[in-house]
Amino acid sequence: MSHLTDIDIAKTTDKKPINEIAKNLGISKEEFIPYGHYKAKIDVNMNKEEFEKNKGKLILVTAISPTPAGEGKTTMSVGLADGLAQIGKKSVLALREPSLGPVFGMKGGAAGGGYAQVVPMEDINLHFTGDFHAISSAHNLISALLDNHIHHGNSLNIDTRKIPWKRVVDMNDRQLRHIVNGLNGSTNGVPREDGYDITVASEIMAIFCLSEDLIDLKERISRIIVAYTHDNLPVTVDDLKGSGAVTALLVDALKPNLVQTLENTPAFIHGGPFANIAHGCNSILATKHALNYGDYAVTEAGFGADLGGEKFIDIKCRTAGLSPDAVVVVATVKALKMHGGVSKQHLNEENVIAVKKGLVNLKHHIQTMKDVFNLNTVVGINHFYTDTDAEVQVILDACQEWGIKASVAKVWEQGGKGATELAQLVVEACENKTDMTFAYDLDTTLMDKINHVVQKVYGGNGATYSNKAMKQLREIEQAGFGHLPVCMAKTQYSLSDTASLIGAPTDFDIKISELRLSAGAGFIVAITGTIMTMPGLPKKPSAESIDVDREGNITGLF
Amino acid sequence: MSHLTDIDIAKTTDKKPINEIAKNLGISKEEFIPYGHYKAKIDVNMNKEEFEKNKGKLILVTAISPTPAGEGKTTMSVGLADGLAQIGKKSVLALREPSLGPVFGMKGGAAGGGYAQVVPMEDINLHFTGDFHAISSAHNLISALLDNHIHHGNSLNIDTRKIPWKRVVDMNDRQLRHIVNGLNGSTNGVPREDGYDITVASEIMAIFCLSEDLIDLKERISRIIVAYTHDNLPVTVDDLKGSGAVTALLVDALKPNLVQTLENTPAFIHGGPFANIAHGCNSILATKHALNYGDYAVTEAGFGADLGGEKFIDIKCRTAGLSPDAVVVVATVKALKMHGGVSKQHLNEENVIAVKKGLVNLKHHIQTMKDVFNLNTVVGINHFYTDTDAEVQVILDACQEWGIKASVAKVWEQGGKGATELAQLVVEACENKTDMTFAYDLDTTLMDKINHVVQKVYGGNGATYSNKAMKQLREIEQAGFGHLPVCMAKTQYSLSDTASLIGAPTDFDIKISELRLSAGAGFIVAITGTIMTMPGLPKKPSAESIDVDREGNITGLF
Repeated sequence: MSHLTDIDIAKTTDKKPINEIAKNLGISKEEFIPYGHYKAKIDVNMNKEEFEKNKGKLILVTAISPTPAGEGKTTMSVGLADGLAQIGKKSVLALREPSLGPVFGMKGGAAGGGYAQVVPMEDINLHFTGDFHAISSAHNLISALLDNHIHHGNSLNIDTRKIPWKRVVDMNDRQLRHIVNGLNGSTNGVPREDGYDITVASEIMAIFCLSEDLIDLKERISRIIVAYTHDNLPVTVDDLKGSGAVTALLVDALKPNLVQTLENTPAFIHGGPFANIAHGCNSILATKHALNYGDYAVTEAGFGADLGGEKFIDIKCRTAGLSPDAVVVVATVKALKMHGGVSKQHLNEENVIAVKKGLVNLKHHIQTMKDVFNLNTVVGINHFYTDTDAEVQVILDACQEWGIKASVAKVWEQGGKGATELAQLVVEACENKTDMTFAYDLDTTLMDKINHVVQKVYGGNGATYSNKAMKQLREIEQAGFGHLPVCMAKTQYSLSDTASLIGAPTDFDIKISELRLSAGAGFIVAITGTIMTMPGLPKKPSAESIDVDREGNITGLF
Repeated sequence: MSHLTDIDIAKTTDKKPINEIAKNLGISKEEFIPYGHYKAKIDVNMNKEEFEKNKGKLILVTAISPTPAGEGKTTMSVGLADGLAQIGKKSVLALREPSLGPVFGMKGGAAGGGYAQVVPMEDINLHFTGDFHAISSAHNLISALLDNHIHHGNSLNIDTRKIPWKRVVDMNDRQLRHIVNGLNGSTNGVPREDGYDITVASEIMAIFCLSEDLIDLKERISRIIVAYTHDNLPVTVDDLKGSGAVTALLVDALKPNLVQTLENTPAFIHGGPFANIAHGCNSILATKHALNYGDYAVTEAGFGADLGGEKFIDIKCRTAGLSPDAVVVVATVKALKMHGGVSKQHLNEENVIAVKKGLVNLKHHIQTMKDVFNLNTVVGINHFYTDTDAEVQVILDACQEWGIKASVAKVWEQGGKGATELAQLVVEACENKTDMTFAYDLDTTLMDKINHVVQKVYGGNGATYSNKAMKQLREIEQAGFGHLPVCMAKTQYSLSDTASLIGAPTDFDIKISELRLSAGAGFIVAITGTIMTMPGLPKKPSAESIDVDREGNITGLF
């Protein structure tokens, strides 16, 4: 058990120059754009057919329903990719970029942990290569063009009370959730209600991650609905004549970023949309790069298998024409204990009964991946040093009973060496590719799609709709967007829409309070309960502990 | 006369790989951080004594009072540096980074023009190496920490009606000038008045440009006054415990950026504060890098010699221990015609009398540089193809009469070849370094400092103060900040505080409406009239003309 912090470990490990990593992947000098010595962007002049052979096997890492105890999905993804390398496979990661917001809020990076990290972790967790800043600028340019149009006469007849397009900032800043702007007289805009989301909640972020190339990106941006007229007609970015300029801000950002793990496994880290109001996966381009350059491409999806996992398949894979060769469902003893009813302060005490009780959640997610989506599924147990053998054995025994291969991975402590058995299971799972099925077909009604997700993926009875949601549903279908996939915005903590219902609840309805059309991203967001799109900082934010010395060494980051 | 646009010229000219440019300067591999193939950051582990020998000669490029006709100060700076190279001198540029705001507003880049440009111009004008994004994040982190403190109990007793620290975005967005935030109930902050400035107006930007290193940066950040308590006591970033985290966001940004001109002259482009509420010069670090690596370091200051020029000397040089070896005052025939009373639509008609009449403005600025600051001064006439020989001769004759060396530079058409004579004059001017004097000493009162600037630099009688300004002046002196330099925020269009008073007005007072303490930057801003810190977009913003093709080529940018 190491007593070093993540940043200590990251700093004391030798990184390879990133041009070596790229060269080993077969990336040419012309395609390689360095951002310092340990980050790069890859600019492949894609011969699409060549590139889309997708030579590698695709492995999705997903998880049980998250708990405050943590599952370590990113850490496991990193460890698995390193584990595959340890057993002689050419593996490449595709992961999401972290947001700046949480860095200054709660402690905890988004670049893995222990000996299973991607590096340089300070860079990845701070500005990285500037993608999120570019996305913020692109988003806020649309806002500026919109309000400028209204200010200069509003010839599009926009109703300033019907503007779903908020502004964004990559910061946890609750003060900006609800604002009134355009105040102080006629030279300073037009007063109206507005608000800020965090950048990862921007529709530009979702679009960015679903785009195949710059033209696709521009077309999606042009379709974004930013406002409605007094006659209730949609106003798009195209109507504001902003598509070209907004896309120009994203030219560099759209090129996937290449970094490495502590064990020098290549990692494409690119894009990072929310997994509630958006689909929660890294960019399609990053995944395709990983597949092109690796024999095994390991990627992750946000939150549990019911949220990020489902959307990875029904939204991302459907859009990109991808399908996983294998799925790893990550579980931890601690999180299963919480699903079994143990409170946070008792998690370090052995409790075999609670682990057993929590297994229903794991079982449910395995069944979703295996039976609903027809994917080869294995379980990865992310080992923590307080886990007892008896507790771990409970999970292993259960998996055996269910006919599911499972392995204990000690990636935090040992890196890739701790995941060679899991890697072997994954390689075996990839040997017989299945025909993936979706949870729903696109050509059914929106209600049917939602029902399919609720019944097949959540285990609920169906969905109920608020009056508002019913009205929106009809409007969206009448406007011709009924063919789009649904993006469920639900609490990540429960399979139901009630965060406190842990384990595997049954006999519940999902209450749809609101539907939102993301016409650019190409999905309909179905909102259940209250979804937070702008977090706040805690009373003692981790920003207070961060410092820098004369040489630029950052401390207290994690 | 070329018919190519700036971006056409920039694209058809061969750039050298930036590592070659760096290598030729003597920058080691360890000090070189590539950002793509044509941009880099330089990370000198500064041996301060070694570095501060400032081997090169420092040349300040300033100008007459700007007019809508344009003076082309950046274009002249680039042309002069290229001209120095043409006559065999090792010249290096130090320039400001452009803001994103104007790019989408009015046409016109900030990377020079014609054959006197810095490249890659699309990058420089868009995100460049992310410095402004880092500064925006750093600024807005302070805002988030401030409002978070108030939300969580406000133990510092901050009066939410006394918060001078606004938020920033690098965008022209008038809608955000005046806002109310913290709305919608007790979980969403505390309602208060707020507003946004454009990023270049952030005090962080000014601090960034005046900092010698990371520790200096952090100390300045810690001193920023963000709010006042109900007892009228200042609240600083240090009180919010944010100095370390804010500085952590600026570690990479603080390293100067290296690019090149179209003629491969090295250019450090770094920082870009407003020249009204701040001092309007690139970073001290960029200037010191240019001096360290070049025999001739060419740098510019914002607006005319009365604003950026004065502050370059009284604020930047004083802080950094620098002094120019020579000053170039840039003038154009068109701008002098406007100072002579010609309206914009008649500028293309020859008008020798108007040029003669406008000369008073040029003469005034020459006298300031020569007599007030005791600097070797030459005049650079930035030639435009509609200028007639007779018009140009008027300026040359006047300069001869005043005993000032002057040269016509055709840098837009010819690049460095068009400025070899000017370069020769500059080299000669540098041969006998003078003892620079300041417009005022720091140990006089704030009123005295302001009077010195008004009388010596503007040619006015003195200053009058609003009641508010008088009160603020007393408070600032009582709080112990009376020893700081003053930063005059005045219209750039006139030597007076009345924009319409062109030429060289006399017998006027400057009306100080407000004083602002920039305790981190280390100056007192004296505001005359209304200073705009958040521009708006025009009715037809240039964003509408910008587009991108499949390969990422940006068109319509300029």
